[in-house]
Amino acid sequence: MATLSDIGVAAAFNIISVVIFLVAFAFLRLQPMFDMVYFPKWYLKGVRISPSLSGVKKFVNLEVRSYLRILEWVPAALKMPEPELIEHAGLDSAVYLRIYLIGLKIFIPITFLAFAILVPVNWTNKTLENSKDSKLVYSDIDKLSISNIPNGSQRFWTHLVMAYIFTFWTCYVLLKEYDIVASMRLQFLESEKRRPDQFTVLVRNVPPDPDESVSELVEHFFLVNHPDHYLTHQVVYNANALQKLVKTKKSKQNWLAFNELRYEKNPSTRPTKKTGFLGLCGEKVDAIDFYRGEIERLSKEEAILREKIKGSPKAIMPAAFVSFKTRWGAAVCAQTQQCRNPTIWLTEWAPEPRDVYWDNLAIPFVFLTIRRLIIAVAFFFLTFFFMIPIALVQSLANLEGIEKIAPFLKPLIDIKLIKSFIQGLLPGIALKIFLILLPTILMLMSKFEGFVSISALERRSASRYYLFLLVNVFLGSIITGTAFEQLDSFIHQSANEIPKTIGVSIPMKATFFITFIMVDGWAGIAGEITRLKPLIIFKLKDMFLVKTEKDREEAMDPGSIGFNTSEPQIQLYFLLGLVYAVVTPFLLPFIIVFFALAYVVYRHQIINVYNQEYESRAAFWPDVHGRIIVALIISQLLLMGLLSTKEAAESTPFLIALPVLTISFHWYCKNRFEPAFNKYPLQEALRKDTRDRTKEPNLDLKGYLSNAYIHPVFKDEEEDDSLLGGDEKELESILVPTKRQSRRNTPVPSKYNGSSSPSLPDTALDQLL
Amino acid sequence: MATLSDIGVAAAFNIISVVIFLVAFAFLRLQPMFDMVYFPKWYLKGVRISPSLSGVKKFVNLEVRSYLRILEWVPAALKMPEPELIEHAGLDSAVYLRIYLIGLKIFIPITFLAFAILVPVNWTNKTLENSKDSKLVYSDIDKLSISNIPNGSQRFWTHLVMAYIFTFWTCYVLLKEYDIVASMRLQFLESEKRRPDQFTVLVRNVPPDPDESVSELVEHFFLVNHPDHYLTHQVVYNANALQKLVKTKKSKQNWLAFNELRYEKNPSTRPTKKTGFLGLCGEKVDAIDFYRGEIERLSKEEAILREKIKGSPKAIMPAAFVSFKTRWGAAVCAQTQQCRNPTIWLTEWAPEPRDVYWDNLAIPFVFLTIRRLIIAVAFFFLTFFFMIPIALVQSLANLEGIEKIAPFLKPLIDIKLIKSFIQGLLPGIALKIFLILLPTILMLMSKFEGFVSISALERRSASRYYLFLLVNVFLGSIITGTAFEQLDSFIHQSANEIPKTIGVSIPMKATFFITFIMVDGWAGIAGEITRLKPLIIFKLKDMFLVKTEKDREEAMDPGSIGFNTSEPQIQLYFLLGLVYAVVTPFLLPFIIVFFALAYVVYRHQIINVYNQEYESRAAFWPDVHGRIIVALIISQLLLMGLLSTKEAAESTPFLIALPVLTISFHWYCKNRFEPAFNKYPLQEALRKDTRDRTKEPNLDLKGYLSNAYIHPVFKDEEEDDSLLGGDEKELESILVPTKRQSRRNTPVPSKYNGSSSPSLPDTALDQLL
Repeated sequence: MATLSDIGVAAAFNIISVVIFLVAFAFLRLQPMFDMVYFPKWYLKGVRISPSLSGVKKFVNLEVRSYLRILEWVPAALKMPEPELIEHAGLDSAVYLRIYLIGLKIFIPITFLAFAILVPVNWTNKTLENSKDSKLVYSDIDKLSISNIPNGSQRFWTHLVMAYIFTFWTCYVLLKEYDIVASMRLQFLESEKRRPDQFTVLVRNVPPDPDESVSELVEHFFLVNHPDHYLTHQVVYNANALQKLVKTKKSKQNWLAFNELRYEKNPSTRPTKKTGFLGLCGEKVDAIDFYRGEIERLSKEEAILREKIKGSPKAIMPAAFVSFKTRWGAAVCAQTQQCRNPTIWLTEWAPEPRDVYWDNLAIPFVFLTIRRLIIAVAFFFLTFFFMIPIALVQSLANLEGIEKIAPFLKPLIDIKLIKSFIQGLLPGIALKIFLILLPTILMLMSKFEGFVSISALERRSASRYYLFLLVNVFLGSIITGTAFEQLDSFIHQSANEIPKTIGVSIPMKATFFITFIMVDGWAGIAGEITRLKPLIIFKLKDMFLVKTEKDREEAMDPGSIGFNTSEPQIQLYFLLGLVYAVVTPFLLPFIIVFFALAYVVYRHQIINVYNQEYESRAAFWPDVHGRIIVALIISQLLLMGLLSTKEAAESTPFLIALPVLTISFHWYCKNRFEPAFNKYPLQEALRKDTRDRTKEPNLDLKGYLSNAYIHPVFKDEEEDDSLLGGDEKELESILVPTKRQSRRNTPVPSKYNGSSSPSLPDTALDQLL
Repeated sequence: MATLSDIGVAAAFNIISVVIFLVAFAFLRLQPMFDMVYFPKWYLKGVRISPSLSGVKKFVNLEVRSYLRILEWVPAALKMPEPELIEHAGLDSAVYLRIYLIGLKIFIPITFLAFAILVPVNWTNKTLENSKDSKLVYSDIDKLSISNIPNGSQRFWTHLVMAYIFTFWTCYVLLKEYDIVASMRLQFLESEKRRPDQFTVLVRNVPPDPDESVSELVEHFFLVNHPDHYLTHQVVYNANALQKLVKTKKSKQNWLAFNELRYEKNPSTRPTKKTGFLGLCGEKVDAIDFYRGEIERLSKEEAILREKIKGSPKAIMPAAFVSFKTRWGAAVCAQTQQCRNPTIWLTEWAPEPRDVYWDNLAIPFVFLTIRRLIIAVAFFFLTFFFMIPIALVQSLANLEGIEKIAPFLKPLIDIKLIKSFIQGLLPGIALKIFLILLPTILMLMSKFEGFVSISALERRSASRYYLFLLVNVFLGSIITGTAFEQLDSFIHQSANEIPKTIGVSIPMKATFFITFIMVDGWAGIAGEITRLKPLIIFKLKDMFLVKTEKDREEAMDPGSIGFNTSEPQIQLYFLLGLVYAVVTPFLLPFIIVFFALAYVVYRHQIINVYNQEYESRAAFWPDVHGRIIVALIISQLLLMGLLSTKEAAESTPFLIALPVLTISFHWYCKNRFEPAFNKYPLQEALRKDTRDRTKEPNLDLKGYLSNAYIHPVFKDEEEDDSLLGGDEKELESILVPTKRQSRRNTPVPSKYNGSSSPSLPDTALDQLL
């Protein structure tokens, strides 16, 4: 077991690597050539413009003075006040940062209290020293932990009281924070300028009608049932095929640009290309001509497809975006049931246009239940049995297998050094690849489940990822064996044995988790800020694809927070902190360093780098709150298990009250605050309506809403810009006065993240609608 | 263990007692003097009138012919078609009968299949006969059960397939039935005449305002937020003190009537009364004068209190019944959130006036969470630890204790016969009293939890009662020991041991449960129809209190179905049937007899006796459905446990799919049908509004609604009659044409069940409003 000095060495090592990362970042960010990697947000905002445009043709920063202030980004990141941050990066990002703040708020007082009371109580025992069991190896850290208290000691009452204090403090912080976030959300909704989604409701499962088209049916239904409020509606086209075509065209255009650049640099030989599989075989042709021809062919196909979709009633999905004259009308429609059959005419708030996940709009009701069941079963197997296919792959991917498939590698493999290297590396690769792919797999699962907005997809994936981490990282580290073996042993254990089994191992794993926090937490966060991957990709694109400034802007990949992976990882630290707060308080300072570092780094990234794909208005908060509550309950159950093995059985009845109280606190919060996240109070809606009416009595709302919800492939970029751009300008002038100038106002970020909803310049919109 | 012939004897004995009950009923119901006990519903409907009024002064039926057709009530009970039944007794009663029908629909095909396939499969083994374990005692029934299959036999596949077939059949019946009940409810809502609750929403937690009264505040809030729809509102007075006073006065009036009757019969001596404790000590006074004086005093106090409540703003509770111009407006308000703070201005559908539980209207939001927590903990202790206080009482209530308290009883107790009798009886009495009081205790718990309608209170009590029966009757009979001992052993057992422990005991308990079904089920149902308790009470009242015909009508206690106790008991039979369907099919015919008998008896009672206190429009159906699903899942888990001990482990994976499928079936039903029970589709609301407007364009809705929701103690009986009576007359003429004449139309049954909301003739209403 690790001693204090071991931990010290590990900490020093990790601190050094963190410092190296930070220095690298501080150096790189000052180089103008990497400006677009480290400050893409400002380019999107139009405050910075590309160095080649601005005329400053420097690639390396030679000013010495600027290097003296390598940490200046830290105060800069902290300086921006929250309202400005909300205006700059959206409410989602601002609230996301509050998760780290909560970590600090919860753990700093707990750490002080634990070090002031629990550490002395633990330290002044001599259980471990006096232990006659010579086999027992203990470390200095264990002397600070609950392990140092003799069995059946009355000192356990201190831990019990502390568990109560920590629980109440955590609940208090959570309550306050839920309150703040809920009112931030309502405040944000109130201060937002007019947006299409405020007036719009998404209607799904429009029943088929032999006499009327979907469009007519929707219009008639809402004219009848919301006579005073219905304004207009937009049907949803099934444009998945078109989207695929547009994607292919985009890739061909990239190849064309690449070849043109090659030709430019080396005008003597025209680039060529083989037409066969992956460009490896087939006829050799002139690459530029080939791609030009391909693009022309695809453009024609696209035009035909557009016409076809426009003309065919089959391309219209049984869903529609219905807009109302007032926010009141939309709020009423979204919150009520329309038809006596609750599986048709399903209404819900429309997500904002860029948040819509178009592919899922047409899934019929009965399939939703079936899909949910399939995914629930699939996720269960993924969590508990994922090791089986990986073990299979590992057993196949051995050296003999490679030698059989590729005999020409035999001499190479037979070299001893290479052989041992491969043998050491191979088994890990399959697992590593799986872990990298896991978030994508979870996202695919959520997509299959049928959610209609990207934000909902990410929230669902985050829940699943958390469960996976809980089972395979937290429990998996405490109890050896695969998740499946754990499951098997838990099924065969009694209900009160499970917390005991885990609880007993908890103090012994403290040093492991401290190392984990340093490697995964500290170094991971520091790695985040250097942005190595986007840096390399940007440079590659810049070399091979970028011709115009517009291309360069598109090559910037600001990325986003990635709620579906980053939030569950934070939650793991909440779990560790809460579990070890009573058991081994020595772990807490490491948690605090993690939260503080992460807060600064992510604040910097949110201000300078990330560009959120959508704005869900902090809709994820109930999930965040719920998961901290889960961590709290787990910590209480494990403490119960641990104490019951310490012959402190009389304390168990007192501990049972804790989870009961925590759960009812959760109920209360759920009832008290959750409606703010899924309902829209009529009072608020009416107030905004009234204010709008006084301010703009002659507004053409119908015109404003008529094209708001069009599938992105149909969207005319120019119109889109003018529509939303004007909106945002007004917004800025209201919220916080800033001196920034907008060049390109529309952060329609899907443009820079083509995977889920690529949008292309396209003028076919007018033909279509 | 019981053999087939033992069961035969028990069955014969029970059948004889059932026949005796039925004959007694058939005889008593023909006597005119008991007419008001056996046909109170028809008196309330006004179809039958009291024999003394009708001039026929018979007390005993002397017509011989009528005794020949002693079973004529059976076809008579079955004859009435369902629509007429709905019109006659309400939707709640009609749907309640469908629970028994479901029992028949599920179990008749299952029984046939089980006897055709499972019984031969079980019977043709010789495991029990060949068993070398001479200690093993087995019965003929066991030879028909799964116990007769040798361990590890391939024949278990039959049981597995049957488990699937039974599950699918049960789910199919449940799905069909949910569909039928949901559309019956919607049909009922649609065909209902105008009712106050269709236009009214209950608003709770009106925030305090220093400048405005509750009434003004409510009016302003809804005028602003529902400008086009708000019509009027009624505030809620805290009339609990007044209600108590009225209750006391009513009791004094009863005593007065009793004494006046005594004097009438024996004019020579005026009845006297002692004024002290319980009339046992104190001054002797003339009873008639005394009660007259008391009533006068109470009447004065009542008038003063009425004035006080009317005048004081403190008597107004922060809740109101808000009525809208249209059903659409009310549906919108009930389904939406009004204010950004979700703990104030809470809106929900108003229960119908007679269903309101007035005492709970003023509970603030935060207390609801706390109360729910307290009750959850209390119910846990009640279920698992109820034996502890009873054992305490039992240990106190022994002979020595009695001798100490009342030494004068010593000679009596010392007589051997009496001694052994008391010793045998005493321990049981405490338990019996507890079981009789249990529904009342559960009802008190629900009241404390803060539900605002009587129907919701009953539904909640039913859930709790079911859980209690499940733990203490079902599990308690299978595993010996108190519920707490079971809980303790379950905590110390592993998750997969629990179904095994229970599953193994299941086949052995078959004979016990067969006896239980006969004694508790068959005989209980037959006892229900003879109505011994109401019969005795009615006769007592008739002797001592009844002076006028009106008194006699009030002395009739038709009672109601008593959803909170009777439904959980039916559910116990569903559970037994489903658990034993695969294990011991021999039990199934007894279940079928129970359901058939209960269906006929309750149909008769609903037609002739019960008078529902309220009409919840089958709001209980989701609960009924959910509990049958629970029974199904329990049966599947126990079968899994049983089979895994039978060395048929390979079948377990196939059985695991069953609960998963059942749960997802439940999800589907919940999403598909439950909205019909807690929401009101806007389309329906609008359709009814439109029809109303065409039919009665000049209706004074405000006048119609203005006095609909008044606390019953403020209600002027005359006005009440005219208001609702007219309504119901119209209703009858629309639904099903009947030839019945209404004399007293208003079945405001609270009159006959004074415990929860007594209503008294009172003319102070006009003064008040």
